[in-house]
Amino acid sequence: MMGGSVSVESRKKLHARFETVRANKAFELFVVAVIVFSALVIGVKTYPIPETVSQIVSALDWVITAIFLVEIIIRFLAEEHKRRFFKSGWNIFDALIVVVSLVPVDNSDMALVGRLIRIFRVLRMISIIPELRLLLTSLLKALPQLGYVMLLMFIIFYIYAAIGSTFFQAINPVLWGDIALSLLTLFRVMTFEDWTDVMYETMDVYPLSWIYYLTFIFFTAFAFLNMVIGIVVSVLEEEQQRIKQAEATARGEPTLLDLQDQIAELKVLLEKGKVSVS
Amino acid sequence: MMGGSVSVESRKKLHARFETVRANKAFELFVVAVIVFSALVIGVKTYPIPETVSQIVSALDWVITAIFLVEIIIRFLAEEHKRRFFKSGWNIFDALIVVVSLVPVDNSDMALVGRLIRIFRVLRMISIIPELRLLLTSLLKALPQLGYVMLLMFIIFYIYAAIGSTFFQAINPVLWGDIALSLLTLFRVMTFEDWTDVMYETMDVYPLSWIYYLTFIFFTAFAFLNMVIGIVVSVLEEEQQRIKQAEATARGEPTLLDLQDQIAELKVLLEKGKVSVS
Amino acid sequence: MMGGSVSVESRKKLHARFETVRANKAFELFVVAVIVFSALVIGVKTYPIPETVSQIVSALDWVITAIFLVEIIIRFLAEEHKRRFFKSGWNIFDALIVVVSLVPVDNSDMALVGRLIRIFRVLRMISIIPELRLLLTSLLKALPQLGYVMLLMFIIFYIYAAIGSTFFQAINPVLWGDIALSLLTLFRVMTFEDWTDVMYETMDVYPLSWIYYLTFIFFTAFAFLNMVIGIVVSVLEEEQQRIKQAEATARGEPTLLDLQDQIAELKVLLEKGKVSVS
Amino acid sequence: MMGGSVSVESRKKLHARFETVRANKAFELFVVAVIVFSALVIGVKTYPIPETVSQIVSALDWVITAIFLVEIIIRFLAEEHKRRFFKSGWNIFDALIVVVSLVPVDNSDMALVGRLIRIFRVLRMISIIPELRLLLTSLLKALPQLGYVMLLMFIIFYIYAAIGSTFFQAINPVLWGDIALSLLTLFRVMTFEDWTDVMYETMDVYPLSWIYYLTFIFFTAFAFLNMVIGIVVSVLEEEQQRIKQAEATARGEPTLLDLQDQIAELKVLLEKGKVSVS
Repeated sequence: MMGGSVSVESRKKLHARFETVRANKAFELFVVAVIVFSALVIGVKTYPIPETVSQIVSALDWVITAIFLVEIIIRFLAEEHKRRFFKSGWNIFDALIVVVSLVPVDNSDMALVGRLIRIFRVLRMISIIPELRLLLTSLLKALPQLGYVMLLMFIIFYIYAAIGSTFFQAINPVLWGDIALSLLTLFRVMTFEDWTDVMYETMDVYPLSWIYYLTFIFFTAFAFLNMVIGIVVSVLEEEQQRIKQAEATARGEPTLLDLQDQIAELKVLLEKGKVSVS
Repeated sequence: MMGGSVSVESRKKLHARFETVRANKAFELFVVAVIVFSALVIGVKTYPIPETVSQIVSALDWVITAIFLVEIIIRFLAEEHKRRFFKSGWNIFDALIVVVSLVPVDNSDMALVGRLIRIFRVLRMISIIPELRLLLTSLLKALPQLGYVMLLMFIIFYIYAAIGSTFFQAINPVLWGDIALSLLTLFRVMTFEDWTDVMYETMDVYPLSWIYYLTFIFFTAFAFLNMVIGIVVSVLEEEQQRIKQAEATARGEPTLLDLQDQIAELKVLLEKGKVSVS
Repeated sequence: MMGGSVSVESRKKLHARFETVRANKAFELFVVAVIVFSALVIGVKTYPIPETVSQIVSALDWVITAIFLVEIIIRFLAEEHKRRFFKSGWNIFDALIVVVSLVPVDNSDMALVGRLIRIFRVLRMISIIPELRLLLTSLLKALPQLGYVMLLMFIIFYIYAAIGSTFFQAINPVLWGDIALSLLTLFRVMTFEDWTDVMYETMDVYPLSWIYYLTFIFFTAFAFLNMVIGIVVSVLEEEQQRIKQAEATARGEPTLLDLQDQIAELKVLLEKGKVSVS
Repeated sequence: MMGGSVSVESRKKLHARFETVRANKAFELFVVAVIVFSALVIGVKTYPIPETVSQIVSALDWVITAIFLVEIIIRFLAEEHKRRFFKSGWNIFDALIVVVSLVPVDNSDMALVGRLIRIFRVLRMISIIPELRLLLTSLLKALPQLGYVMLLMFIIFYIYAAIGSTFFQAINPVLWGDIALSLLTLFRVMTFEDWTDVMYETMDVYPLSWIYYLTFIFFTAFAFLNMVIGIVVSVLEEEQQRIKQAEATARGEPTLLDLQDQIAELKVLLEKGKVSVS
């Protein structure tokens, strides 16, 4: 029993030490620096480099992986409730990136996957810097709100793509060959990328086909506008709600409801007063 | 008389049963699934498919039409006041799509129309999903507000098109041949699609014609901006009105008017009190 | 003296009659219809038309001019204070358009000016429809607010154009020949119209010239964004001011200041009451 | 001592005189005119001009530099605390521009730098006109707020550039040769400049590479939208804060807190009154 308490105590000490390391600002900055360095290494690899440099880069790669591994272990050991560690999506992402980096890849098909994984290590920047994590979370939170607008937009796209490949398939199979190609062509029209070339080609056969393009542009522009307004409105609302809340609590200002209660109190006092007087 | 009451009762039972089917969430989901499936069938038809698959697709087409027919009939029978059924534009749209789908088309000119009708069946998605219906209604509601801005924009377009085809007709009849072509060319310039090619061509003859393009871009950009602001403002206003209303009723918070009334009450009490005291 | 009073009276009668005509809704609609018709005539003239039709169109042109002349005269006579008539910019514009239309043009250089004047008659639509007039006035009102932003933008443009024509003049004199051409090229870059073609050309000589283009795009995009925000904010502010004002007066809702006054009144009453009681 | 006091007095007089000159509106306008004139001179130099005109322009250049020098000296002498003069970044900028303009440049490599310095003299417009200075300061103030969004955007760009140059390097080394070129190509894709040409090229080798482009466009558009909203929200917030503050102080309107205090006062009075009555 005594031995047990000692081991618990020493474990606690160790845990506290890891905790200190994790919370250390210098440790965080060091990890950020390593991520930036790993991004630079990725960038360097895209240039034609002599064999010796390539070997150094490979070595550096392993050093980075090792540092990331140590960092993850420290963060894991610093966590009091080990299970909670894997409840955070970011922790799982970090662990996955490191584990897959550890798998040795020979210069075959797998080498490409290995390179991709090393590229995605740059995303660890988001998992490390809290402000970026917050930004991404708020971006993702805005997505479902827009779900129905995007569904409506996809319906518009699909109908136009179906009409497009029905009528224009014979004119230019590269652009209108099947519904997938038509969807891509319509996306291109929406970005105004050489859309008149696409239009003039079909207008040679169907002179009225400009109606098809103009209505499509109007519909998508209109739906897009609606989407943007949707986001702006929802963001502004949230913001105003937040401000109002913050103001009320910060300045200790009463609400109209509070004032009403206080006036009611006065009334009670007055009525009592009247009674006691008469 | 008794037989009549029985028939009325049995009719009511039948009606209630249809009502139950229509209100059933599973029924709605099934219809949505059929619409999605019908959209996929439309997509498949744009690919080069062997004869056997084509026959299966044709059969599926009839199955979908049959399901839609049954669904419309159920919805119609579930409606208590049959006349009200045809007052909803969406119901008429649904019925029309199904009825036209039932017209047999041989592989001639009408076949194309038949295909188009089948494509427009995807629009039934909007009529089925209430959120999309709401979205479209609010989109259409915003349109008339913008009527005058669009009229102003059309006047700008028309004047520039008239000037354009007057001066540039001889330079490039494909772009400036008549006022309709000029309008299309100006729409292209507004989307910045190879607008400098159009400009440089006319600048060879009229070196100062860049004034024409730049003023046009400024005017339309400005009018467009105004349009966007118009929508944003009107949407925000509605939103704020709605929020204010909702807040006031939800939190039971009094308005300043309520507070004024309560203070007035106090005054009456005080004045009475004074009287009774003296 | 009596004759004079008669003439004054008859003049007044005539004036009242003209007033009635001008205020008549049907008269306004008729003028709008004539303007639309004159716009259509302009449009028709851009198509290749046979001689006979051309003569009819010419005749219609004179009819339209005559109607406009009569309309202006009616509007002028309906105005009580003749001097005030020419204080409105729109009246001067209308009169000018009509007067210049009356100048006979033979098929020479002046013919083109004549055609232009006839095109600008479409602008009379704005002067006739009050909603469009309002829209244009509010657009013009927003312009001076943006004056300084546009000056800042022009300074950015000018500096970049000067740098551009200094360095890139030898590379492509068509695009960078002098400062005017450079300004036009930069406007093109701002609209993203084939801007990479422009960039890659100069990058062959100055590999770092992408910095020039990217900083330019960032600066102009940023200034443009600022301009848009400027408009949005000012429009929203005005709107909110207007709403607040309207609400306060419409609902008869008291301000916080009113409530304060009423509470102060209560206090006076109470203090008086206290005195009378003791 | 007397001489000293005289010199101090005469210095003060001189100082006051310079002060008067600097504060003079005509002086400011004159400097603005000189800057505009210097901008025009820069513009003229980009045109092919005969030798004589070129010499005049050169002479004018020196006149402008001389005027700027005198102006800076006046502004410096008008400043009471000489040290404070160099604390303003704009003053340092102005002084630097003038000093570098004074360095004589022969027609060699340095000539280009000399021309550049003369171009940047146009920026003095911003340092002279207070409204432009204010505009720039508010623009710069908005930048750091957007820092994290721009970092997120750069991470997205970097990852896509790394993937792009890994996969597409062999297809088109001009566009995807290394990570710097890839970043430039992706910026081009973001501006929709011939992005389909880039895409179709890689789709010949990797038919699914449209996923790469479409996700990239979505991510950047989404992040960009977020950035715009971020600015709009922060600007609107500031504006509303400012308005609220201004309103409250201007109209002398009480806050809800004031009203609460006054009601509390009433309560005290009432309670006292009750006591005195009973």
